[in-house]
Amino acid sequence: MIIINTGNGKGKTTSAIGQIVRYLGQGFKICLIYLFKSEHCCGENNILSKLNNIDILYFVNQHPYFNTNIHTSDIILECNLALSKLKEFVNSNHRYDVFVLDEFNIALKDKFINEKNFISVVQLLSKQSDIIITGRGATQKLLDLADLVTDMIDVKHPYSHGILAKKGLEF
Amino acid sequence: MIIINTGNGKGKTTSAIGQIVRYLGQGFKICLIYLFKSEHCCGENNILSKLNNIDILYFVNQHPYFNTNIHTSDIILECNLALSKLKEFVNSNHRYDVFVLDEFNIALKDKFINEKNFISVVQLLSKQSDIIITGRGATQKLLDLADLVTDMIDVKHPYSHGILAKKGLEF
Repeated sequence: MIIINTGNGKGKTTSAIGQIVRYLGQGFKICLIYLFKSEHCCGENNILSKLNNIDILYFVNQHPYFNTNIHTSDIILECNLALSKLKEFVNSNHRYDVFVLDEFNIALKDKFINEKNFISVVQLLSKQSDIIITGRGATQKLLDLADLVTDMIDVKHPYSHGILAKKGLEF
Repeated sequence: MIIINTGNGKGKTTSAIGQIVRYLGQGFKICLIYLFKSEHCCGENNILSKLNNIDILYFVNQHPYFNTNIHTSDIILECNLALSKLKEFVNSNHRYDVFVLDEFNIALKDKFINEKNFISVVQLLSKQSDIIITGRGATQKLLDLADLVTDMIDVKHPYSHGILAKKGLEF
Protein backbone atom coordinates (compact mmCIF):
# COMPACT_ATOMS: atom_id res chain seq x y z
CA MET A 1 0.00 0.00 0.00
CA ILE A 2 1.25 3.50 -0.85
CA ILE A 3 0.25 6.20 1.64
CA ILE A 4 0.82 9.93 1.18
CA ASN A 5 0.64 12.67 3.83
CA THR A 6 0.71 16.02 2.10
CA GLY A 7 -0.71 19.56 2.41
CA ASN A 8 0.35 22.86 3.96
CA GLY A 9 -0.78 21.99 7.48
CA LYS A 10 0.78 20.33 10.50
CA GLY A 11 0.72 16.56 10.80
CA LYS A 12 2.47 15.08 7.77
CA THR A 13 5.64 13.87 9.49
CA THR A 14 3.97 13.80 12.91
CA SER A 15 1.30 11.44 11.64
CA ALA A 16 3.97 9.24 10.01
CA ILE A 17 5.75 9.05 13.39
CA GLY A 18 2.48 8.04 15.07
CA GLN A 19 1.97 5.48 12.32
CA ILE A 20 5.45 4.05 12.95
CA VAL A 21 4.65 3.64 16.66
CA ARG A 22 1.39 1.89 15.75
CA TYR A 23 3.14 -0.48 13.30
CA LEU A 24 5.91 -1.21 15.82
CA GLY A 25 3.30 -1.99 18.45
CA GLN A 26 1.84 -4.61 16.12
CA GLY A 27 5.23 -6.22 15.58
CA PHE A 28 6.08 -4.76 12.16
CA LYS A 29 9.58 -3.72 11.12
CA ILE A 30 10.30 -0.22 9.88
CA CYS A 31 12.85 1.61 7.77
CA LEU A 32 12.56 5.37 8.26
CA ILE A 33 14.46 7.50 5.75
CA TYR A 34 14.71 11.22 6.45
CA LEU A 35 15.57 13.87 3.91
CA PHE A 36 16.56 17.39 5.04
CA LYS A 37 16.82 16.50 8.72
CA SER A 38 19.72 15.62 10.97
CA GLU A 39 19.99 13.01 13.69
CA HIS A 40 19.35 15.66 16.33
CA CYS A 41 16.49 17.30 14.46
CA CYS A 42 13.66 16.40 16.67
CA GLY A 43 12.39 14.90 19.88
CA GLU A 44 10.86 11.82 18.30
CA ASN A 45 14.28 10.45 17.37
CA ASN A 46 15.34 10.34 21.01
CA ILE A 47 12.51 7.84 21.46
CA LEU A 48 12.44 6.02 18.11
CA SER A 49 16.20 5.36 18.09
CA LYS A 50 15.82 3.40 21.33
CA LEU A 51 13.04 1.14 20.07
CA ASN A 52 13.50 -2.26 18.47
CA ASN A 53 12.62 -3.10 14.87
CA ILE A 54 13.31 0.33 13.41
CA ASP A 55 16.28 1.54 11.39
CA ILE A 56 16.68 5.24 10.69
CA LEU A 57 18.68 6.69 7.80
CA TYR A 58 19.44 10.36 7.13
CA PHE A 59 20.24 12.00 3.80
CA VAL A 60 20.85 15.75 3.33
CA ASN A 61 21.13 17.27 6.78
CA GLN A 62 19.40 20.55 6.04
CA HIS A 63 17.01 21.98 3.51
CA PRO A 64 18.16 24.91 1.34
CA TYR A 65 15.12 26.80 2.59
CA PHE A 66 16.75 26.92 6.03
CA ASN A 67 20.38 26.97 4.92
CA THR A 68 21.01 28.85 1.68
CA ASN A 69 24.70 27.95 1.75
CA ILE A 70 23.99 24.38 0.63
CA HIS A 71 24.71 23.84 -3.08
CA THR A 72 21.85 22.40 -5.09
CA SER A 73 24.28 19.95 -6.71
CA ASP A 74 25.11 18.52 -3.27
CA ILE A 75 21.44 18.16 -2.42
CA ILE A 76 20.77 16.35 -5.69
CA LEU A 77 23.72 14.06 -5.04
CA GLU A 78 22.53 13.10 -1.55
CA CYS A 79 18.88 12.74 -2.56
CA ASN A 80 20.01 10.33 -5.24
CA LEU A 81 22.04 8.39 -2.71
CA ALA A 82 18.80 8.02 -0.77
CA LEU A 83 17.05 6.80 -3.92
CA SER A 84 19.89 4.34 -4.64
CA LYS A 85 19.61 3.02 -1.09
CA LEU A 86 15.90 2.53 -1.58
CA LYS A 87 16.52 0.79 -4.90
CA GLU A 88 18.88 -1.66 -3.14
CA PHE A 89 15.96 -2.88 -1.07
CA VAL A 90 13.93 -3.88 -4.16
CA ASN A 91 14.18 -7.64 -4.63
CA SER A 92 16.63 -7.88 -1.73
CA ASN A 93 15.90 -9.90 1.38
CA HIS A 94 15.25 -6.85 3.51
CA ARG A 95 13.26 -7.26 6.68
CA TYR A 96 11.07 -4.15 6.47
CA ASP A 97 7.28 -4.27 6.46
CA VAL A 98 7.08 -0.51 6.12
CA PHE A 99 9.23 2.21 4.57
CA VAL A 100 8.64 5.78 5.73
CA LEU A 101 10.07 8.31 3.29
CA ASP A 102 10.01 11.61 5.11
CA GLU A 103 9.91 14.81 3.00
CA PHE A 104 10.41 12.92 -0.27
CA ASN A 105 7.50 14.93 -1.71
CA ILE A 106 9.67 18.04 -1.33
CA ALA A 107 12.57 16.35 -3.13
CA LEU A 108 10.26 15.46 -6.02
CA LYS A 109 8.56 18.85 -6.13
CA ASP A 110 11.94 20.64 -6.15
CA LYS A 111 13.27 18.15 -8.73
CA PHE A 112 16.14 16.92 -6.54
CA ILE A 113 14.97 13.41 -7.41
CA ASN A 114 13.72 12.26 -10.81
CA GLU A 115 10.02 11.51 -10.44
CA LYS A 116 9.96 8.64 -12.95
CA ASN A 117 12.88 6.85 -11.25
CA PHE A 118 11.35 7.35 -7.82
CA ILE A 119 7.93 6.11 -8.86
CA SER A 120 9.37 2.99 -10.45
CA VAL A 121 11.25 2.13 -7.22
CA VAL A 122 8.20 2.85 -5.06
CA GLN A 123 5.98 0.70 -7.27
CA LEU A 124 8.34 -2.25 -6.93
CA LEU A 125 8.89 -1.79 -3.18
CA SER A 126 5.18 -1.47 -2.52
CA LYS A 127 4.69 -5.07 -3.68
CA GLN A 128 6.58 -6.17 -0.56
CA SER A 129 5.98 -3.36 1.97
CA ASP A 130 3.78 -0.43 2.89
CA ILE A 131 5.31 2.89 1.82
CA ILE A 132 4.51 6.16 3.59
CA ILE A 133 5.65 9.34 1.83
CA THR A 134 5.42 12.75 3.52
CA GLY A 135 5.94 16.37 2.55
CA ARG A 136 3.93 19.19 1.08
CA GLY A 137 3.28 19.44 -2.66
CA ALA A 138 2.98 15.75 -3.56
CA THR A 139 3.17 15.42 -7.35
CA GLN A 140 0.07 14.43 -9.29
CA LYS A 141 1.64 11.23 -10.63
CA LEU A 142 2.46 10.09 -7.11
CA LEU A 143 -1.06 10.98 -5.93
CA ASP A 144 -2.49 8.94 -8.81
CA LEU A 145 -0.38 5.97 -7.77
CA ALA A 146 -1.21 6.14 -4.04
CA ASP A 147 -3.83 4.06 -2.24
CA LEU A 148 -4.36 6.46 0.66
CA VAL A 149 -3.87 10.23 0.46
CA THR A 150 -4.45 12.71 3.27
CA ASP A 151 -4.21 16.44 2.73
CA MET A 152 -3.34 18.21 5.99
CA ILE A 153 -4.94 21.63 5.73
CA ASP A 154 -3.68 24.52 7.84
CA VAL A 155 -6.88 26.06 9.21
CA LYS A 156 -5.20 28.09 11.94
CA HIS A 157 -1.52 28.20 12.84
CA PRO A 158 0.26 30.25 15.52
CA TYR A 159 3.15 30.93 13.09
CA SER A 160 0.84 33.29 11.26
CA HIS A 161 0.63 35.29 14.51
CA GLY A 162 4.41 35.47 14.74
CA ILE A 163 4.89 32.63 17.24
CA LEU A 164 8.09 30.68 16.59
CA ALA A 165 8.53 26.90 16.34
CA LYS A 166 8.05 25.38 19.77
CA LYS A 167 10.10 22.55 21.29
CA GLY A 168 8.07 19.36 21.57
CA LEU A 169 5.41 20.65 19.22
CA GLU A 170 7.43 21.28 16.07
CA PHE A 171 10.75 19.53 16.72
CA MET B 1 -1.61 26.24 23.52
CA ILE B 2 -4.75 24.50 22.28
CA ILE B 3 -4.26 22.25 19.24
CA ILE B 4 -7.03 20.58 17.27
CA ASN B 5 -6.72 17.72 14.77
CA THR B 6 -10.02 17.35 12.97
CA GLY B 7 -11.45 16.43 9.55
CA ASN B 8 -12.68 13.31 7.78
CA GLY B 9 -9.23 12.04 6.81
CA LYS B 10 -6.62 9.84 8.39
CA GLY B 11 -4.08 11.33 10.78
CA LYS B 12 -5.99 12.93 13.66
CA THR B 13 -5.12 10.42 16.38
CA THR B 14 -2.04 9.18 14.49
CA SER B 15 -0.61 12.68 14.42
CA ALA B 16 -1.36 13.13 18.14
CA ILE B 17 0.56 9.89 18.83
CA GLY B 18 3.50 11.21 16.81
CA GLN B 19 3.25 14.46 18.73
CA ILE B 20 3.37 12.58 22.03
CA VAL B 21 6.54 10.78 20.95
CA ARG B 22 8.08 14.12 19.95
CA TYR B 23 7.14 15.73 23.29
CA LEU B 24 8.43 12.71 25.25
CA GLY B 25 11.70 12.89 23.33
CA GLN B 26 12.10 16.47 24.52
CA GLY B 27 11.51 15.49 28.14
CA PHE B 28 7.89 16.61 28.50
CA LYS B 29 5.28 14.74 30.54
CA ILE B 30 2.04 13.56 28.99
CA CYS B 31 -1.48 12.63 30.04
CA LEU B 32 -3.29 10.80 27.23
CA ILE B 33 -7.03 10.39 27.71
CA TYR B 34 -8.86 8.13 25.29
CA LEU B 35 -12.58 8.12 24.67
CA PHE B 36 -14.24 5.22 22.81
CA LYS B 37 -11.16 3.02 22.81
CA SER B 38 -10.01 0.17 25.00
CA GLU B 39 -6.58 -0.65 26.35
CA HIS B 40 -6.05 -3.19 23.58
CA CYS B 41 -7.39 -0.96 20.85
CA CYS B 42 -4.28 -0.31 18.96
CA GLY B 43 -0.64 -1.00 18.34
CA GLU B 44 0.63 2.33 19.63
CA ASN B 45 -0.40 1.48 23.17
CA ASN B 46 1.91 -1.53 23.23
CA ILE B 47 4.73 0.99 22.79
CA LEU B 48 3.44 4.06 24.66
CA SER B 49 2.51 2.11 27.78
CA LYS B 50 6.15 1.03 28.14
CA LEU B 51 7.59 4.56 27.91
CA ASN B 52 8.32 6.85 30.84
CA ASN B 53 6.56 10.14 31.52
CA ILE B 54 3.20 9.18 30.04
CA ASP B 55 -0.02 8.18 31.78
CA ILE B 56 -2.89 6.77 29.77
CA LEU B 57 -6.54 6.84 30.84
CA TYR B 58 -9.49 5.19 29.11
CA PHE B 59 -13.15 6.20 29.29
CA VAL B 60 -15.97 4.50 27.33
CA ASN B 61 -14.52 1.38 25.80
CA GLN B 62 -16.43 1.48 22.55
CA HIS B 63 -18.28 3.94 20.42
CA PRO B 64 -22.00 3.40 19.80
CA TYR B 65 -21.21 3.59 16.08
CA PHE B 66 -19.39 0.25 16.42
CA ASN B 67 -21.47 -1.22 19.24
CA THR B 68 -25.13 -0.28 19.13
CA ASN B 69 -25.82 -2.16 22.38
CA ILE B 70 -24.23 0.59 24.46
CA HIS B 71 -26.80 2.85 26.13
CA THR B 72 -26.36 6.55 25.44
CA SER B 73 -26.89 7.25 29.13
CA ASP B 74 -23.85 5.08 29.97
CA ILE B 75 -21.75 6.89 27.39
CA ILE B 76 -22.76 10.27 28.79
CA LEU B 77 -21.95 9.08 32.29
CA GLU B 78 -18.47 7.89 31.35
CA CYS B 79 -17.70 10.92 29.18
CA ASN B 80 -18.55 13.10 32.14
CA LEU B 81 -16.28 11.03 34.36
CA ALA B 82 -13.53 11.88 31.87
CA LEU B 83 -14.45 15.55 32.09
CA SER B 84 -14.46 15.41 35.91
CA LYS B 85 -11.03 13.80 35.85
CA LEU B 86 -9.78 16.59 33.59
CA LYS B 87 -11.32 19.18 35.89
CA GLU B 88 -9.42 17.68 38.84
CA PHE B 89 -6.18 18.60 37.12
CA VAL B 90 -7.08 22.30 36.99
CA ASN B 91 -5.25 24.13 39.78
CA SER B 92 -3.87 20.84 41.07
CA ASN B 93 -0.15 20.13 41.21
CA HIS B 94 -0.26 17.73 38.28
CA ARG B 95 2.96 17.03 36.46
CA TYR B 96 1.70 17.11 32.88
CA ASP B 97 3.09 19.45 30.23
CA VAL B 98 0.63 18.13 27.67
CA PHE B 99 -2.87 16.65 27.72
CA VAL B 100 -3.98 14.67 24.69
CA LEU B 101 -7.76 14.31 24.55
CA ASP B 102 -8.44 11.68 21.93
CA GLU B 103 -11.85 11.72 20.19
CA PHE B 104 -13.22 14.43 22.48
CA ASN B 105 -14.44 16.26 19.37
CA ILE B 106 -16.81 13.32 18.78
CA ALA B 107 -18.09 13.53 22.36
CA LEU B 108 -18.82 17.24 21.89
CA LYS B 109 -20.37 16.82 18.46
CA ASP B 110 -22.62 14.01 19.70
CA LYS B 111 -23.44 16.00 22.85
CA PHE B 112 -22.11 13.37 25.26
CA ILE B 113 -20.22 16.21 26.93
CA ASN B 114 -21.54 19.72 27.52
CA GLU B 115 -19.54 22.04 25.27
CA LYS B 116 -19.59 25.00 27.66
CA ASN B 117 -18.29 22.93 30.60
CA PHE B 118 -15.61 21.34 28.45
CA ILE B 119 -14.40 24.64 27.04
CA SER B 120 -14.17 26.20 30.48
CA VAL B 121 -11.98 23.30 31.72
CA VAL B 122 -9.80 23.40 28.59
CA GLN B 123 -9.31 27.15 28.88
CA LEU B 124 -8.12 26.82 32.47
CA LEU B 125 -5.90 23.78 31.77
CA SER B 126 -4.31 25.45 28.75
CA LYS B 127 -2.81 28.11 31.01
CA GLN B 128 -0.56 25.37 32.46
CA SER B 129 -0.25 22.81 29.65
CA ASP B 130 -0.59 22.24 25.92
CA ILE B 131 -3.88 20.56 25.03
CA ILE B 132 -4.31 18.42 21.91
CA ILE B 133 -7.88 17.49 21.00
CA THR B 134 -8.66 15.02 18.22
CA GLY B 135 -11.73 13.75 16.40
CA ARG B 136 -13.79 14.67 13.39
CA GLY B 137 -16.39 17.42 13.55
CA ALA B 138 -14.71 19.85 15.97
CA THR B 139 -17.30 22.40 17.11
CA GLN B 140 -17.01 26.01 15.95
CA LYS B 141 -16.58 27.34 19.49
CA LEU B 142 -13.65 25.03 20.10
CA LEU B 143 -12.13 25.96 16.74
CA ASP B 144 -12.46 29.64 17.66
CA LEU B 145 -10.65 28.99 20.93
CA ALA B 146 -7.79 26.93 19.44
CA ASP B 147 -4.34 28.23 18.56
CA LEU B 148 -3.53 25.57 15.98
CA VAL B 149 -6.11 23.75 13.87
CA THR B 150 -5.40 21.15 11.22
CA ASP B 151 -8.11 19.71 9.03
CA MET B 152 -7.15 16.23 7.80
CA ILE B 153 -8.85 15.87 4.43
CA ASP B 154 -9.51 12.43 2.98
CA VAL B 155 -8.34 12.76 -0.63
CA LYS B 156 -8.19 9.05 -1.34
CA HIS B 157 -8.89 6.18 1.04
CA PRO B 158 -8.85 2.43 0.39
CA TYR B 159 -12.00 2.02 2.53
CA SER B 160 -13.93 3.60 -0.29
CA HIS B 161 -12.77 0.67 -2.46
CA GLY B 162 -14.02 -1.80 0.11
CA ILE B 163 -10.68 -2.52 1.80
CA LEU B 164 -11.06 -3.18 5.52
CA ALA B 165 -9.10 -1.61 8.38
CA LYS B 166 -5.55 -2.95 8.32
CA LYS B 167 -3.45 -3.95 11.34
CA GLY B 168 -0.63 -1.51 11.94
CA LEU B 169 -2.15 1.09 9.66
CA GLU B 170 -5.49 1.70 11.36
CA PHE B 171 -5.13 0.04 14.75
